Amino acid sequence: MSDQATKRFFSSRWVDVPDTVREDPAGGLPGGFRAAGVAAGIKPSGGKDVALLVSDAPETTSAARFTRSGVLAAPVLLTQERCNLEAIRAVVANSGNANAATGGRGLDDAAKMQGAGAMAAGVEADRVAVASTGVIGVPLDSQAVVSGLARARGELRADGDADFAAAIMTTDAFEKRATLAVDLPDGTVRLSAQAKGAGMIQPSFATLLCFVQTDAVLSAETADLLLGVCVKRSFDRISVDGQLSTNDTVILMCSGASGVAVEPESEAELVFGHALDALLRQLALSMVRDGEGAKRVGRVVVRGGHLASVEEAARAVANSPLVKAALHGGDPNWGRIVQSVGMALPETAPLPVDVTIEGVRVCARGAAAEFDKADLVERVAGEEVEYVVDLPGDGAETEVFFSDLSHGYVTINAEYTT
Amino acid sequence: MSDQATKRFFSSRWVDVPDTVREDPAGGLPGGFRAAGVAAGIKPSGGKDVALLVSDAPETTSAARFTRSGVLAAPVLLTQERCNLEAIRAVVANSGNANAATGGRGLDDAAKMQGAGAMAAGVEADRVAVASTGVIGVPLDSQAVVSGLARARGELRADGDADFAAAIMTTDAFEKRATLAVDLPDGTVRLSAQAKGAGMIQPSFATLLCFVQTDAVLSAETADLLLGVCVKRSFDRISVDGQLSTNDTVILMCSGASGVAVEPESEAELVFGHALDALLRQLALSMVRDGEGAKRVGRVVVRGGHLASVEEAARAVANSPLVKAALHGGDPNWGRIVQSVGMALPETAPLPVDVTIEGVRVCARGAAAEFDKADLVERVAGEEVEYVVDLPGDGAETEVFFSDLSHGYVTINAEYTT
Repeated sequence: MSDQATKRFFSSRWVDVPDTVREDPAGGLPGGFRAAGVAAGIKPSGGKDVALLVSDAPETTSAARFTRSGVLAAPVLLTQERCNLEAIRAVVANSGNANAATGGRGLDDAAKMQGAGAMAAGVEADRVAVASTGVIGVPLDSQAVVSGLARARGELRADGDADFAAAIMTTDAFEKRATLAVDLPDGTVRLSAQAKGAGMIQPSFATLLCFVQTDAVLSAETADLLLGVCVKRSFDRISVDGQLSTNDTVILMCSGASGVAVEPESEAELVFGHALDALLRQLALSMVRDGEGAKRVGRVVVRGGHLASVEEAARAVANSPLVKAALHGGDPNWGRIVQSVGMALPETAPLPVDVTIEGVRVCARGAAAEFDKADLVERVAGEEVEYVVDLPGDGAETEVFFSDLSHGYVTINAEYTT
Repeated sequence: MSDQATKRFFSSRWVDVPDTVREDPAGGLPGGFRAAGVAAGIKPSGGKDVALLVSDAPETTSAARFTRSGVLAAPVLLTQERCNLEAIRAVVANSGNANAATGGRGLDDAAKMQGAGAMAAGVEADRVAVASTGVIGVPLDSQAVVSGLARARGELRADGDADFAAAIMTTDAFEKRATLAVDLPDGTVRLSAQAKGAGMIQPSFATLLCFVQTDAVLSAETADLLLGVCVKRSFDRISVDGQLSTNDTVILMCSGASGVAVEPESEAELVFGHALDALLRQLALSMVRDGEGAKRVGRVVVRGGHLASVEEAARAVANSPLVKAALHGGDPNWGRIVQSVGMALPETAPLPVDVTIEGVRVCARGAAAEFDKADLVERVAGEEVEYVVDLPGDGAETEVFFSDLSHGYVTINAEYTT
């Protein structure tokens, strides 16, 4: 299992960390990458708010995933339409303004960012991805971003990942960043990531952003395949408040600088995939833990005979404000679990649901089971609480991670922010 | 328009009260009905908790609607399976225990209630509907209910509606009850209702219950048609926390005692239908206003070209904890409206959404509009706030009423209640 250093980043029992993965507490980017983050005056706080990441390898491959929202921010539209997503060599990002709901002007501003990023990185514009996070519906000061990028160019460093990460944060309570060494059969590669997100959406601040780099050699197809699988098991499985953002962006870039190849259907692909899976799952869990005002993280596992049903039921439990409030209060209130499952699966009564909380069966075939309440209350007092719901049949199973609903969430989100 | 007395019950600007409708502030039941409510020891508080309603007219017709949850409480299952829903002559209900998630024992207890109700009302068991509301997953003391019903029989009165209403309340902050006179072309009929509900679900307390009585003459088919239409425009359009209960029950009973007929497709049916619509809409709005910890009520209207899309969008706005928290804080945060609409309609970008809050256009074709912020902040400071969302196309329109998300909600629901 993982050593002590690894545990610094990998803190959840719900992430399997393979023996082939070691955290590098010193951080830094894999070979071929440089990054920087500067303060350009977008954030009222004066903190770092413009980020630049560059791969120096012309043959860099990449893969990307975006929000599926019907309302897309300008940088997401621009990156999807005017960027070669299989060969991204640079990322320009800003915090403090999401450049969302900004109309035609927003698209122009995103294009200016892309152009300035191309200049700063020394690559073609169509190899530059653009990302923004922050307030919605306010025009972006793209001139400030362009000036910031010019300065960031001079500060690009192989250990610039900390500055880069700081420049994409908004109201995150803590940094979400890691550098890993991964032992593949043919050699060791490095894998790093910088992410931000504390809620699918902040109080009018959009977004989950995650940028991942490796010096392994991957084809764009392999990168896309692995990123797709791992996003499905990480960022697709979390819910702070059930809200989908206008700006969510995840980008994996592979410089190939290590010379160690990850071929399709090889042992190396399996090992690399497990490492990427652990990395993204822990980052996703960190976002849930950093949910607005959150103090506990829940995991609901739903098993049964139909994939659509288990998905509906798991989402209903994870998004129920009643379940979230009970998690917050340390209340093992199984009636709310049963109620939300019933809501998710209308017209199926009588539904023989089993519910198990932290290993204790509390509901069997839809009716209360005998259990030691004092013991269960103790079990749900920790930072992570697990709920398992069994529906009729088998063969399908899913999970969703969710944060609790606290006074902090209401305070943060009821404040006057427009 | 309505007179001063009518305004006591009809308090929302979103309910049209026809001139043909007058509230009777003295209350009381329509001809043919008697009711009672007694304390039988189910509620720990010692308050009234067993309710009995009887129609003395053998030809009484009825109609009913129930929760669609996949997890149904025993009284709902029993009433659906062992009650002639077109000819209900009595209702027995208890508060303090929902008799939900109670397995086979729960069905036995519900059957005992039905039998005792038949004895108390002097009617066949299959003409007795059973309803329960309260804690989930705890066996019901049906013997206490049976004893209570025996006592309630002796207290049945034509003005027993207040006691009946008190006996079905759980954590409602205020009473939800009205008696109306409705002027039909051939004479005046009376229409009364008693309801409970303060959230689709209380902290492990289930439920919306609503019992409606009239002395008009309606066939069971007409009663069913009118109840179906009016429930769709009232209880189906509200959301406190997006949670569907295990016990929701609405029953309309028509004694015919007035001798005034409501024939299909007649002017009388139209007038009676409008009165029932106003009654149920105001009751539904009262439940939203009584939402746990709520202080404001929102109404979102979504218009566009596709019925399914406007419904999805309206539900997403009404159930968004971000929108609800903004409503609570008096924050006219239109970015959250746009974001929740985008989430509801994935893969439709770029979506030209218009958003209007209290008559002020804040977002036009997906981009920020110019408006007077100070003026808008004043407009959203009232007890009711209206949001209008326009999607492309026309022909479809829907509305959802919702409560705000407050510290009170978190406090109520995070408390240890299991």
